[in-house]
Amino acid sequence: MALIVQKYGGTSVKDVDRIRNVAQRIKKTVDEGHQVAVVVSARGGVTNELVARAKELNPRPDEREMDMLLACGEQETIALTAMALHALGIPAVSRLGYQAGFRTDAAHTRARIRDITGGDIPDRLAEGKVVIVAGFQGQDEEGEITTLGRGGSDLSAVALAAGLKADVCQIYTDVEGVYTADPRVVPNARKIEEISYEEMLELASMGSKVMQARAVEFSQKHNVVFEVRSSFNHNPGTIVKAEVPSMEDVVVSGVALDKNQAKIAVSDLPDTPGTAAKVFKALGDANVLVDMIVQNIGRGGAANLTFTVSKDDVHRAVEAVEKSLTEMGGGTVNYVGDVAKVSVVGVGMRSHAGVAATLFSILADNGVNIQMISTSEIRISVAIELEDAVKACQAVHDGFGLDK
Amino acid sequence: MALIVQKYGGTSVKDVDRIRNVAQRIKKTVDEGHQVAVVVSARGGVTNELVARAKELNPRPDEREMDMLLACGEQETIALTAMALHALGIPAVSRLGYQAGFRTDAAHTRARIRDITGGDIPDRLAEGKVVIVAGFQGQDEEGEITTLGRGGSDLSAVALAAGLKADVCQIYTDVEGVYTADPRVVPNARKIEEISYEEMLELASMGSKVMQARAVEFSQKHNVVFEVRSSFNHNPGTIVKAEVPSMEDVVVSGVALDKNQAKIAVSDLPDTPGTAAKVFKALGDANVLVDMIVQNIGRGGAANLTFTVSKDDVHRAVEAVEKSLTEMGGGTVNYVGDVAKVSVVGVGMRSHAGVAATLFSILADNGVNIQMISTSEIRISVAIELEDAVKACQAVHDGFGLDK
Repeated sequence: MALIVQKYGGTSVKDVDRIRNVAQRIKKTVDEGHQVAVVVSARGGVTNELVARAKELNPRPDEREMDMLLACGEQETIALTAMALHALGIPAVSRLGYQAGFRTDAAHTRARIRDITGGDIPDRLAEGKVVIVAGFQGQDEEGEITTLGRGGSDLSAVALAAGLKADVCQIYTDVEGVYTADPRVVPNARKIEEISYEEMLELASMGSKVMQARAVEFSQKHNVVFEVRSSFNHNPGTIVKAEVPSMEDVVVSGVALDKNQAKIAVSDLPDTPGTAAKVFKALGDANVLVDMIVQNIGRGGAANLTFTVSKDDVHRAVEAVEKSLTEMGGGTVNYVGDVAKVSVVGVGMRSHAGVAATLFSILADNGVNIQMISTSEIRISVAIELEDAVKACQAVHDGFGLDK
Repeated sequence: MALIVQKYGGTSVKDVDRIRNVAQRIKKTVDEGHQVAVVVSARGGVTNELVARAKELNPRPDEREMDMLLACGEQETIALTAMALHALGIPAVSRLGYQAGFRTDAAHTRARIRDITGGDIPDRLAEGKVVIVAGFQGQDEEGEITTLGRGGSDLSAVALAAGLKADVCQIYTDVEGVYTADPRVVPNARKIEEISYEEMLELASMGSKVMQARAVEFSQKHNVVFEVRSSFNHNPGTIVKAEVPSMEDVVVSGVALDKNQAKIAVSDLPDTPGTAAKVFKALGDANVLVDMIVQNIGRGGAANLTFTVSKDDVHRAVEAVEKSLTEMGGGTVNYVGDVAKVSVVGVGMRSHAGVAATLFSILADNGVNIQMISTSEIRISVAIELEDAVKACQAVHDGFGLDK
């Protein structure tokens, strides 16, 4: 008998039929003799509906009230899921975030988990009940309802698994696991059996939005092994866990594509110390995350600066940069355009030289120009023309032998 | 400056526009210099939707889970109402039932209030905030969410008014107050200015469904004066309070009509002691509330028994009676049919004789046959043919001078 935490996302509990399907899956696990605690999200679409209603009443709704409002979504699902289990003859009881002992800080709409006690869940599990826990929500020290931010139910699930010292944590979603590349872009992408937290984080932050990065970070910190798998079939998924030596045999585990990047080029900056710093400080103050950066010296000694930001931030970014240029009395924003970012990720890179060289030659052989480069210990990313994105992904995927 | 509790029902907060209207009304009260605590129901229709979804998953949903599910409805409204007030520049904060200190017993879906502490509401009011409280919900000793039953938000409002020692309690609804008769039946019915708890209770239980009887009983017990008024205009409503001597000047304050009654006639019961008792015990065991009863002796000394029940219970009632007749070895259910019940209500009846005589002669003058009669200290009811209902109501209303 194992203690299993299962998490079902909004797509998996979208309507009454899907909730019934989830109940069947839970029953199967119970019938196999396991104790089961389940974390569910709001029914797909419900959160967006609630947000729309709020914004109609108030374009800038209070964050505390937003949490009060959004917490309804998961509350509905836990009750319905418990009822569906009862209909199958499985004893079950629902628990809200605060009842499950999710204590958070008071940062409404993006609260951080401080502690997860599990409340009375161990007792209920010991009685043979399935416990259905509302994901995404907690309570601060003042007794106010908080939420963990979009995708927070993943975080709830791994935190609950840590709090209950569960044997297994299964994240059920609408994909079958983590792939060597997005199968919609690279048709011969393969499902990865095992992957390290670091690789999962790099892939997640690079646009493979299987799971929220905070949930992966939490798992890494608390050493929660979890499996990403589909709620629509019974295939094994991808196990995410701490790095083990054998993982290093694979130099590259996946290729990620991010088409949501914009490039901003600034030229003729005065070539004096601190000008670039001032530009990036202005961007930071405007809450713009800068990704890749290239700086070089142009004609006449003036500095040129090129960097990428998320497309959603591009207007805010240009505004901030122009303001700081005016203050410095020099430089012009002279180019803004969309780019794609292709990344190769793998813990094996640490011990294998030459990954960058291989990547660049694959791209060159396929006629893809590299505009910018950035790296981390286990990742190399290049910015390229948006129209080269698919070709580049396929070439890199197969060039690193990920199709085998 | 007064402390005012206002309650807005589901129709008044049905959609974003109506919530905005409610926020405007609250703002008006705040602008007049008052402290305001507001109790709201779920948006009209939401509770029914949730129930429908639950029943699709489980025809007999667990009552604890039902409470978990239904409590979402009010949670949504309190957050939206607070946001709408913020948009008008009014500081406001929402509170769930348990946060407002509604402690109940553990009778899920029909919990009784044990205690209402008000939580931190007095502090928030003192800070100049409007506090928006979720009606209908509380928490039991185990920390489980409970609900007070349909219409429970009225109860929440008067209980909160009692707990906070409010100066005024206003129940906003979709009617303008309590009328001398249902204006859809009796077009010249008038709004009553003041009415006693007892009269309100008799009118409510007789089909004038302005307010849940439990809320009126609670008000009576805790001496909470409240006003029933419309959320769609600014007209004064009806004040409901303890009986005062001047109320006795009015012999009849209102006429109530209940068209949801069925009559069941049983004949040829063995005329031995205890047969009627056995029939009514069987009905009680089947959870059927019997209203009016007539017993007489028919041909050959056999007893006949006629009684009325709610139409919804008629099949269960007939089944129970037939079973008990089989056991007694005698008697047949020989008539089942719909009837209307017309009641006149008034605390003045206590001190004025002859109300029954006046009622019967008004009905006789209008050619309405009386089938059964029942009375309480401040009410006389008659069962009549369903098709005579409207004519009888109008005649009785005008006959007792309620049109003046």
